[in-house]
Amino acid sequence: MSEVLVAGGGIGGLAAAFTQARAGHRVRLLERAQEFGEVGAGLQLGPNATRLLAGWGLLDRVIAAGVLPERLVFRDALTGEELTDLPLGEDFQDRYGAPYVVVHRSDLHGILLEACRAAGVDLVRGTGVERVETRGERATAYCAGGAVHDGDVVIAADGLQSGLRGQLVADEPLDSGFIAHRGTCPLPDDFDTTEVVAWFGPDCHFVQYALRGGKLLNQVAVFRRGRDLDSAYEGCCEQVQKGLPYLWRDRNWPMLDREPARTWVRGRLALLGDAAHPMLQYLAQGACQALEDAHELAAQAAGGDWDRALAAYQEIRAPRTARVQATARLWGDIWHVDGVGRILRNELFQTRDRSSYVYTDWLYGETTVTTRSAAADSTATASAVRR
Amino acid sequence: MSEVLVAGGGIGGLAAAFTQARAGHRVRLLERAQEFGEVGAGLQLGPNATRLLAGWGLLDRVIAAGVLPERLVFRDALTGEELTDLPLGEDFQDRYGAPYVVVHRSDLHGILLEACRAAGVDLVRGTGVERVETRGERATAYCAGGAVHDGDVVIAADGLQSGLRGQLVADEPLDSGFIAHRGTCPLPDDFDTTEVVAWFGPDCHFVQYALRGGKLLNQVAVFRRGRDLDSAYEGCCEQVQKGLPYLWRDRNWPMLDREPARTWVRGRLALLGDAAHPMLQYLAQGACQALEDAHELAAQAAGGDWDRALAAYQEIRAPRTARVQATARLWGDIWHVDGVGRILRNELFQTRDRSSYVYTDWLYGETTVTTRSAAADSTATASAVRR
Repeated sequence: MSEVLVAGGGIGGLAAAFTQARAGHRVRLLERAQEFGEVGAGLQLGPNATRLLAGWGLLDRVIAAGVLPERLVFRDALTGEELTDLPLGEDFQDRYGAPYVVVHRSDLHGILLEACRAAGVDLVRGTGVERVETRGERATAYCAGGAVHDGDVVIAADGLQSGLRGQLVADEPLDSGFIAHRGTCPLPDDFDTTEVVAWFGPDCHFVQYALRGGKLLNQVAVFRRGRDLDSAYEGCCEQVQKGLPYLWRDRNWPMLDREPARTWVRGRLALLGDAAHPMLQYLAQGACQALEDAHELAAQAAGGDWDRALAAYQEIRAPRTARVQATARLWGDIWHVDGVGRILRNELFQTRDRSSYVYTDWLYGETTVTTRSAAADSTATASAVRR
Repeated sequence: MSEVLVAGGGIGGLAAAFTQARAGHRVRLLERAQEFGEVGAGLQLGPNATRLLAGWGLLDRVIAAGVLPERLVFRDALTGEELTDLPLGEDFQDRYGAPYVVVHRSDLHGILLEACRAAGVDLVRGTGVERVETRGERATAYCAGGAVHDGDVVIAADGLQSGLRGQLVADEPLDSGFIAHRGTCPLPDDFDTTEVVAWFGPDCHFVQYALRGGKLLNQVAVFRRGRDLDSAYEGCCEQVQKGLPYLWRDRNWPMLDREPARTWVRGRLALLGDAAHPMLQYLAQGACQALEDAHELAAQAAGGDWDRALAAYQEIRAPRTARVQATARLWGDIWHVDGVGRILRNELFQTRDRSSYVYTDWLYGETTVTTRSAAADSTATASAVRR
């Protein structure tokens, strides 16, 4: 049994702590804030993530807290016309072995927190890790306020603004020039709870879906900085316009990411989640990739050989998440394009074969993470299952 | 028998003169230059044009002077990869009732000139029409140098820079910001004479095809003004690069068009060809639409009722050519797009169903011009066969 320290109690940190505890390690999670919690609204979980939650025994609770949409619908925000959709029914679930679920961030966070408690994770609040020293087979976490914790490994899950990432990579978050307004409100009568709808406009988009068993409407409005919320959607169709009043006006989120990093591991310090691969939200994979990280690291570390496990983790996860980061950026460009690019996008989307999975297999497919038995052999095996 | 005056002896003017003579009218064509001739290089004739040439008994001569390519191929100029193609074989010819032919402009011009001579057209050189007066059922053409010609109608086929258009429409040619270098050279050994190839690059494109039974290579390089020929294609693949030395360096053509005009007819003066609807070359329809004009006007005027015929001609031809003008502009934007638009274009082209005619039926289909028997009835019939 190893001693695992996790820095950060967001979705990624909790998932890492839970999977490490589940793999039989003694886990202590150190969270900077005085209370555990999540800021934000809805969250989409592709089958690459729900498949893992199912394996962890948590999917039923997530589904009970969320909604199982029947399709993702992509619409032109100016004309309102449907461009394409992704049916999320039986075919989709059979192909990917799990459903597509939308859930409130705080509900997913709460389920993971409860799972950590049940698995015996030592959850420490008000203790931010500021620096990690790694020497030989041990690592030491130095915390704000003077606390010091020792373990076999420190998993840095301290988010987009990660302080620990600086020990491995010299970079800063990059501003995409877009900001998001979010908001939840009681579900209007005329909203179809079976759909996750993304409206594409020039330099803006708008996402809507039902949460909490259909009681809540979740909305996200993302647009290029420099206009206010109302003027950014001026030319958009009525269905978009009438959603705007329900967005929170007092807060917005800049859309940031970073360039993919090759180095996720130094000695016994490893990055995970947004600390490793902060991404734009266009593929809705931020939390999903953090869950994949947690799963992969637990699968690799099951044997207790941390040096080998961390090397395999980096080798498998860095290229996978780099692809998701790059594709999310491209996807954002596609969502926000205007002029001839918009005409080409609409034609491409409207004429595509809707029964094809060519754009989703790489992301949702079964071979994207390592099973525990495959990991047991060697890094060579692990890298062979990577696409 | 009417007396028809045609102002301008380019491809449109000759086609108009020939079809009017063929319909039984007495035709005089007035050309400004001292000699008949065409500047330029190759020309593409879609089946909407070759179908008309076949009906006029001229297609065999055009084919003998030209080449019957087996497919249009669209390639990315940066990577060289094929994006899509349009097979021009049996299926295509069956669908559209005629082949796709490429021919030297001067060869087509010569065939039409010879056909005019054989049909008894009075071909007058060195006589540019400067002004037309139309009174009641007669029109008078006042020419540079003082000559005056009377007729029942004047067909103004004086091209993109038409002086007579100013009597109907107050506009000027619009500069698209692109210029063309053209050139012909002996066909290199490794060039596939069965293909018309269009290479798409950011802010540039390059077109290549064989002419004159495969003895000549025709090339057109179009790029955004502001760079020289070599630097405009700097990033392009080797196959594009190696074509550049064979382009004529001492002359280039600005790519101009005009906004579609609603008024083509005033009294007994009618616009035809580039004088009516100058278009960017991206659909290769400049000459083809002039031939359609000539056919339509002759079909409508067969009965000798010129007022009805000219009204029907304008009603049928103006919206048709406006669509070609607008689509040619869009097509140019699609050819020259960069960034995310280029990615979307390439994906759209590469994934499209290559057996589909959805993008060509409107242009090449059978119902785009009026048959003589249909025209005999009324303008109502004529407008019913328009798409």
